[in-house]
Amino acid sequence: MIQDLTSIGKKAQAAASKLALLNTATKNKALLQLADALTANQDQIIAANKLDLANATEMPAKFTDRLMVNSQRIADMASGLRTVADLSDPTAQIDKGWITKDGLQILQRRVPLGVVGIIFEARPNVTVDATGLTFKSGNAVILRGGKEARQTNIALVKILRQALQKQGLPVDAVQLITDTSHAVADEMMNLTDYIDVLIPRGGRNLIQRVVTTATVPVIETGAGNCHIYIDKDADLQMATEIAVNAKVQRPSVCNAAEKLLIHQDVAPQFLPLIAQALIDHGVQLRGDATACELMPAIKPATNADWDTEYNDLIMAVKVVDSLDDAIKHINEHSTHHSEAIITKDLNRGRYFQQAINSACVYVNASTRFTDGGEFGFGAEIGISTQKLHARGPMGLQQLTTIKYEITGNGQVRK
Amino acid sequence: MIQDLTSIGKKAQAAASKLALLNTATKNKALLQLADALTANQDQIIAANKLDLANATEMPAKFTDRLMVNSQRIADMASGLRTVADLSDPTAQIDKGWITKDGLQILQRRVPLGVVGIIFEARPNVTVDATGLTFKSGNAVILRGGKEARQTNIALVKILRQALQKQGLPVDAVQLITDTSHAVADEMMNLTDYIDVLIPRGGRNLIQRVVTTATVPVIETGAGNCHIYIDKDADLQMATEIAVNAKVQRPSVCNAAEKLLIHQDVAPQFLPLIAQALIDHGVQLRGDATACELMPAIKPATNADWDTEYNDLIMAVKVVDSLDDAIKHINEHSTHHSEAIITKDLNRGRYFQQAINSACVYVNASTRFTDGGEFGFGAEIGISTQKLHARGPMGLQQLTTIKYEITGNGQVRK
Repeated sequence: MIQDLTSIGKKAQAAASKLALLNTATKNKALLQLADALTANQDQIIAANKLDLANATEMPAKFTDRLMVNSQRIADMASGLRTVADLSDPTAQIDKGWITKDGLQILQRRVPLGVVGIIFEARPNVTVDATGLTFKSGNAVILRGGKEARQTNIALVKILRQALQKQGLPVDAVQLITDTSHAVADEMMNLTDYIDVLIPRGGRNLIQRVVTTATVPVIETGAGNCHIYIDKDADLQMATEIAVNAKVQRPSVCNAAEKLLIHQDVAPQFLPLIAQALIDHGVQLRGDATACELMPAIKPATNADWDTEYNDLIMAVKVVDSLDDAIKHINEHSTHHSEAIITKDLNRGRYFQQAINSACVYVNASTRFTDGGEFGFGAEIGISTQKLHARGPMGLQQLTTIKYEITGNGQVRK
Repeated sequence: MIQDLTSIGKKAQAAASKLALLNTATKNKALLQLADALTANQDQIIAANKLDLANATEMPAKFTDRLMVNSQRIADMASGLRTVADLSDPTAQIDKGWITKDGLQILQRRVPLGVVGIIFEARPNVTVDATGLTFKSGNAVILRGGKEARQTNIALVKILRQALQKQGLPVDAVQLITDTSHAVADEMMNLTDYIDVLIPRGGRNLIQRVVTTATVPVIETGAGNCHIYIDKDADLQMATEIAVNAKVQRPSVCNAAEKLLIHQDVAPQFLPLIAQALIDHGVQLRGDATACELMPAIKPATNADWDTEYNDLIMAVKVVDSLDDAIKHINEHSTHHSEAIITKDLNRGRYFQQAINSACVYVNASTRFTDGGEFGFGAEIGISTQKLHARGPMGLQQLTTIKYEITGNGQVRK
């Protein structure tokens, strides 16, 4: 099927201008209807998903598991939409207001961004999550999912659009690009006249391709070469528990730790014990010369290791001379996502938090907490690793911008 | 002189990491010293400026006036730095803080963006303004000014850097790219490893070139095709005063109005009177068919007129069928900077404010108030016409981002 992206862009923009004027109650009611429509039509979704799974014979099991949709997963998607309905609506918010010296009343209001583009891989839950979050924040969304989930996405988007239509709401609030070719993705990334922001969700290759190809503004998400630094004043047991948790609790995600730095003063005592705890949890360790010397089970790391996000049960270990040495190494090699220091010294903890150039900087806690839900933001659309517009977990608020509404009674500038 | 941009970028980044840790008192004291250094060395600056002026024989008078620096203008630059010292420091601010369900303390802090690039034309005051604002917000700045102001900029930056050095502060907080070739500007626009954000300041051509060339994130500023819409419920005298003020008070700036829309119900009565007032102020008028019919002094507008920012005593006038017709025209042709409705009807005013997709939307006031000073933000680095990160007048706050500082006592994720 050939799709005209300009026409999709125009329809999204027209829908966005209507969505911006909807009140919160209408949007919340609609989200509940969307949730009900998914469960009511689950047979359709599962049938479409079977076609996708049948075509996905060459996919590794890890990915087919993410692609697979069943009754329980549809119930989870629906429940996700209901959760979003419960979140507060950022576009109902006036950030602040004031009166100027000339008597003008200025209100700084939250307003939707407009049209959000999401490029993602073969994970059908993203289709529903992204629709819920963009709709609640008053944005129209253009979805471009992975080709392996094409039939499932078509079924999901059809059901969501039908549910919007039934309620007299703009169906083009949600559009799917069904042509899954690279050429069409490239065209989407350059649809500057119609798409206000592009959010890639997926692995590093996808994100890199979007960042380098797109002229539409991109919010970079999810690359996580995260560090745990064990300071000379750390508690050994706490350090071990946090290092193990940050590495093994869910190694495939972006906030899992990939690197372990240990201060030289405690390395001889701590490193072998912590390394053994990691090995006991199935972690393969690589290290610098000192680490390898202290623990023969550690294999030598290459230069590339320090910049690699493994997303797997692998970790690289380095002994550092000082707190400043740790900070320097992290600021040079990190993807600026999440880093942690383990220390009993408040001043060293605060200094680390100030000097580290990352979105989330922890003292005495696991990096695994970098997550919209754990932060209390509710659902998240991604974790931004850039500094402009959004940084860290992105919830509804980050899908909005501001507008100044100024009201006077005839003021002119002198 | 050949400059190595990578080396400039590295130095800026090193300076930025030091600037981020300076406290407000140190920065304020430094700004006062920078101000004093400018006035103490004014002869040097004026001598350099004479060289620039001597080379600028082919420049139109309007531009040589902006290029010219004298005692008074140096005093103004110095006074600008002192004003910035008086503004509150956004990086001393903690936006909010909370405790999560797991007992983690999360602080959302304001932190500097890092390295800011400014590309501007032959206006030496921008060199000092931009240095003051970026320094106060804890950023390092890389300046690339117009070639016509090269000697003046070299003198200014030398004095600013000397004053920083005297105080033991990082001199690379301010660096000037002295090679004013296009090739070097292009290289700067793609220095993604070192520059966090690029802010072009100048005319439309400069901004367009930066937007299309840069891979460094850009904040678009200053394009202003601003509209005044006179509704059927407008007060004639107020409408006339605002239309005249928005057009003629300072026609060369981005928040001056370029278009006048009038509701058809009042056009026969209002249009000739308002048009005459504009003509009396030296404005040349162009219009659609109805406008030309109602007022023979109005010459026919071309299609291109509706998208043109004149920055001059020219205005295009159009008669619209309805409020929605006005909104549609504005949303299609505006640069999304500032628009105003003149109306006595509160509901129509609020509807206009909600439906117009621009940074600043006025009811019953001149668009000329879109300005950091008028808004009460103090000095501004530009007026953003985009939706991501910053929208409308950009002060110190918009030169910052956030960081989450999370403190626990051993929390791991279950």
